[in-house]
Amino acid sequence: MVSYELLHECKQSGARLGILHTPHGDIQTPVFMPVGTQASVKTLSPEEVASTGARIMLSNTYHLWMRPGPDLVAEAGGLHKFMNWRGAVLTDSGGFQVFSLAERRKIEEEGVHFRSHIDGSPQFLSPEKAMDIQTKLGSDIMMQLDECAPWPSTHEYIEASMQRTLRWLERCKKSWHTPETQSLFGIVQGGMFKDLRQESALRCTEMDLPGYGIGGLSVGEPAELMCEMLEAVTEILPQNKPRYLMGVGTPDYLIEATIRGVDMCDCVWPTRLGRNGSVITSRGRLTIRNATYARDFRPLDPECDCYACRNYSRAYIRHLIKAGEVFGLRLTSYHNIYYLQKLMQKLREAIKEDRTLDFRREFYQNVAEGPAREAAESTGSRA
Amino acid sequence: MVSYELLHECKQSGARLGILHTPHGDIQTPVFMPVGTQASVKTLSPEEVASTGARIMLSNTYHLWMRPGPDLVAEAGGLHKFMNWRGAVLTDSGGFQVFSLAERRKIEEEGVHFRSHIDGSPQFLSPEKAMDIQTKLGSDIMMQLDECAPWPSTHEYIEASMQRTLRWLERCKKSWHTPETQSLFGIVQGGMFKDLRQESALRCTEMDLPGYGIGGLSVGEPAELMCEMLEAVTEILPQNKPRYLMGVGTPDYLIEATIRGVDMCDCVWPTRLGRNGSVITSRGRLTIRNATYARDFRPLDPECDCYACRNYSRAYIRHLIKAGEVFGLRLTSYHNIYYLQKLMQKLREAIKEDRTLDFRREFYQNVAEGPAREAAESTGSRA
Repeated sequence: MVSYELLHECKQSGARLGILHTPHGDIQTPVFMPVGTQASVKTLSPEEVASTGARIMLSNTYHLWMRPGPDLVAEAGGLHKFMNWRGAVLTDSGGFQVFSLAERRKIEEEGVHFRSHIDGSPQFLSPEKAMDIQTKLGSDIMMQLDECAPWPSTHEYIEASMQRTLRWLERCKKSWHTPETQSLFGIVQGGMFKDLRQESALRCTEMDLPGYGIGGLSVGEPAELMCEMLEAVTEILPQNKPRYLMGVGTPDYLIEATIRGVDMCDCVWPTRLGRNGSVITSRGRLTIRNATYARDFRPLDPECDCYACRNYSRAYIRHLIKAGEVFGLRLTSYHNIYYLQKLMQKLREAIKEDRTLDFRREFYQNVAEGPAREAAESTGSRA
Repeated sequence: MVSYELLHECKQSGARLGILHTPHGDIQTPVFMPVGTQASVKTLSPEEVASTGARIMLSNTYHLWMRPGPDLVAEAGGLHKFMNWRGAVLTDSGGFQVFSLAERRKIEEEGVHFRSHIDGSPQFLSPEKAMDIQTKLGSDIMMQLDECAPWPSTHEYIEASMQRTLRWLERCKKSWHTPETQSLFGIVQGGMFKDLRQESALRCTEMDLPGYGIGGLSVGEPAELMCEMLEAVTEILPQNKPRYLMGVGTPDYLIEATIRGVDMCDCVWPTRLGRNGSVITSRGRLTIRNATYARDFRPLDPECDCYACRNYSRAYIRHLIKAGEVFGLRLTSYHNIYYLQKLMQKLREAIKEDRTLDFRREFYQNVAEGPAREAAESTGSRA
């Protein structure tokens, strides 16, 4: 079972410094979790992922279910052993991908009918099935099956969906047979409606689970609205349980979420950005493919001390990417994950020293980009 | 300048154990050189390449000329620094790619006119240009511009081509301005004609260069014929200079070449094979994509101690490759290069212990595959 230990709350913002104890090691929070969609963080080895400082990885139940299948992973001794990852693993429920990737999906009370995006075969995902797959995968943290409703949706739709997600949580809890080694997290939904978010958070909390996800945010809504919803939810969730904001994200969102009391985040963004030939730096985003960098012999980020920045120039990495060399994508992906791990480390230091709002101000001054900036300036923080 | 030190000749076959001294370290020979076509051994980091035991890498003048260009590499401080490789570098002349890749090529005494395979622009490669580019790249070993004639060709064509290649060597030698840091190798041609091969070897030797390539072999001819040509050439080349068989290759060919007195080989084969989802093992080739391996939890090669074999199963690597994950190709590429480095290490030990023919016999017994097998059995060795 995972457990959360709260070490300190930032006096400026209420941001939480803590430790997530898991069967595969302790994780300092707030934490950013890299995503190994198909049992591999794209382009990187597990040792490389660990060398960025990451100690927990997310993997996708839907993808592993479709290929290679949960029984094969179980036969291999579980996901950790299969992919040679010594840290902790969180798996999602598969629901998000069913709603975003799969074809001809149909939601019913019982679960979701859909067709596989690989071979078009008919499939059915229920709360019990999501638990069964995750049990076989052997992740440290399992997520309940939920519906991540689109934005915008009506109050009526979101309420019905949120209530069903709560019923699905009850069924997941009943199918949770491995509480000693695997921990089930419920997921707070409720769209962009404060009343529904708070009801969902309250009802989830009553289930007394090891942790809580916050889903259905960062789905296209303005950053301001996301921050409002986050505040509504984290004021209700219990202090002694970890809060996981799903699918976030970019440096600015990570900072905003942390300031609002979030402990865990994940996103494919850093590796996807890297594979598109772009990198995050302390001065903003940099599209390394651009001709500007052809003869630029500086590192990706002169302020970064990662493997890529210590050993390679922008000119070399640009050459690799232009020439279609995989090693170029390894370097940009590695740098981006390293950057986010360093960002979270700096955020943890800022919490300890009660200066997260100062940290945020300095960050925006340096980067001067990011959609959450306006939100940050207009909504303030819980402090 | 590179120099060659002959340590021992195998009493069974005449295979040579030696050291190639280079400005970037000593290299034990016989050696297999991995290929970093575009200043990167495909999918791998330089540290990974070095960890297979490789201390010299080949890079392609044609590709680097077209992209990113020799001036940019020179600005970066040369190829070693550009790609962060601490070992030695051998560059080819660009001729082979011009003959195989480029469009609308036309050979004249002065050089070769062709169009770039990237943008179709008209280009011209002469012996002087090949030297100029390689000088800018800063490789430890530079190859002369030669014509790698197709097989089969007439005696008349090959003789004219070989004579021109010798005249090109004279011009390369005149354009060789950096003998202290960069060494020029001539290339023995002569197709599949023993008289032309021997004349070419003799005339190259008279030029008194730091080393000699053997080109125009392994171009589709029977292994038996290649072995015959090799024997004809290595009996003429001087004992105190390294002999480099270009574009070889597979384990069987590496063994056959070594037994015939070759010191250096290179080939894209191990990485190309790896990217196609196949691996070399001590028991022959294995196509890891095949369904047979879906639930095979053994390492790629149970007799191998490489990173891939110590940490991952066939089932996992197959999953990665089926799912299009780059990390799978990294593992197969790494294993294949490691396998060849180990093979060469074992061959060096066999030379030291005067048992290269025994080694060959055991190898074929284990692998029971490879096109050179029949040749090996029919042509014997120089011993």
